[in-house]
Amino acid sequence: MNYYSESINQLIEELAQLPSIGAKSAQRLAFHIINMPEERAERLSSVILSAKKNVRYCKECFTLTDSEICPICANPKRDKKTIMVVEDTRDLIAYEKTGQYEGVYHVLHGAINPTLGVTPADIRLKELMQRLQTDVDEVIIATNSTLEGEATAMYISKLLKPAGIKVTRIASGVPVGGDLEYIDEVTLFRALQGRTEL
Amino acid sequence: MNYYSESINQLIEELAQLPSIGAKSAQRLAFHIINMPEERAERLSSVILSAKKNVRYCKECFTLTDSEICPICANPKRDKKTIMVVEDTRDLIAYEKTGQYEGVYHVLHGAINPTLGVTPADIRLKELMQRLQTDVDEVIIATNSTLEGEATAMYISKLLKPAGIKVTRIASGVPVGGDLEYIDEVTLFRALQGRTEL
Repeated sequence: MNYYSESINQLIEELAQLPSIGAKSAQRLAFHIINMPEERAERLSSVILSAKKNVRYCKECFTLTDSEICPICANPKRDKKTIMVVEDTRDLIAYEKTGQYEGVYHVLHGAINPTLGVTPADIRLKELMQRLQTDVDEVIIATNSTLEGEATAMYISKLLKPAGIKVTRIASGVPVGGDLEYIDEVTLFRALQGRTEL
Repeated sequence: MNYYSESINQLIEELAQLPSIGAKSAQRLAFHIINMPEERAERLSSVILSAKKNVRYCKECFTLTDSEICPICANPKRDKKTIMVVEDTRDLIAYEKTGQYEGVYHVLHGAINPTLGVTPADIRLKELMQRLQTDVDEVIIATNSTLEGEATAMYISKLLKPAGIKVTRIASGVPVGGDLEYIDEVTLFRALQGRTEL
């Protein structure tokens, strides 16, 4: 049954297709939008369009950006000889927020996942290999610590080792502030394996 | 620091202002929108605009609708002598979904809430009084079972009683399928007070 008017229905339907927005949330969001001042709704509508139209991949690291080359790759102060490989742009941002990384990135846009049919050819691995033709000192693999992320890390390390490039993996262990009691066994085991001398 | 490109930032900012969407969700939604097919993003953008532009209040019951008179008020089969007063359009839809109500509605668009400064003049009470000039048998008050909803119900009943109109309130009690163990004391007390003979 169509309880709402056509315009409201269409809005609810579109919103409900967004990730992690269920039927009830879509309804609440739709009513919020309808009650917005007109200029706010126009702005929301236009930023969706402009983000979709203006955003493209950086030609070097494949992060999402407005320009040909992203601000990080365009920054002459960044160390181009150190490349951190991440699964997506959000992971890149997460490391940028630490303010501690001086190198550049390479965004794969995914991880190898045989069950979902994501093969090495589906992520930006070929492009990574091409970048390694230039002078690179170290490739830091910072894929997620999930099954897919680990598999991708292993795959990349096997691919790069023969080329004689230094390949490292970010450490796995107890998060800072983490209470051992609540940490899973695999992480505890990894933390033990990766222990460092004090 | 501006980690994202301008277009992505603007999109994240706008999304984060929607209710119950935090910074992380806004990021996830923004990336989802950027990865959408172009026509999906265009559609999302345009339904926001058209909902905002086309939706107005029904001239009779003040629900949100595309036309002058909403489909419920325009339906000759609905009993115009029974008016159910609800707080907003979503509550109206909730009752429509039961398929058991034959009367019409009156949408207040709010409830009296002195702490938030919502007075009887801020909700559609004057319009309700005007509707009662015509031939009305019963006003069913179906405001929420919250402090504000109850206060509004009391206020309306005091307003209408002198006019000699039958005013009823929907029952308060244990929800169907509800386990007494998990129901709060006030609801249990209400259920006891409202007991009916079998």
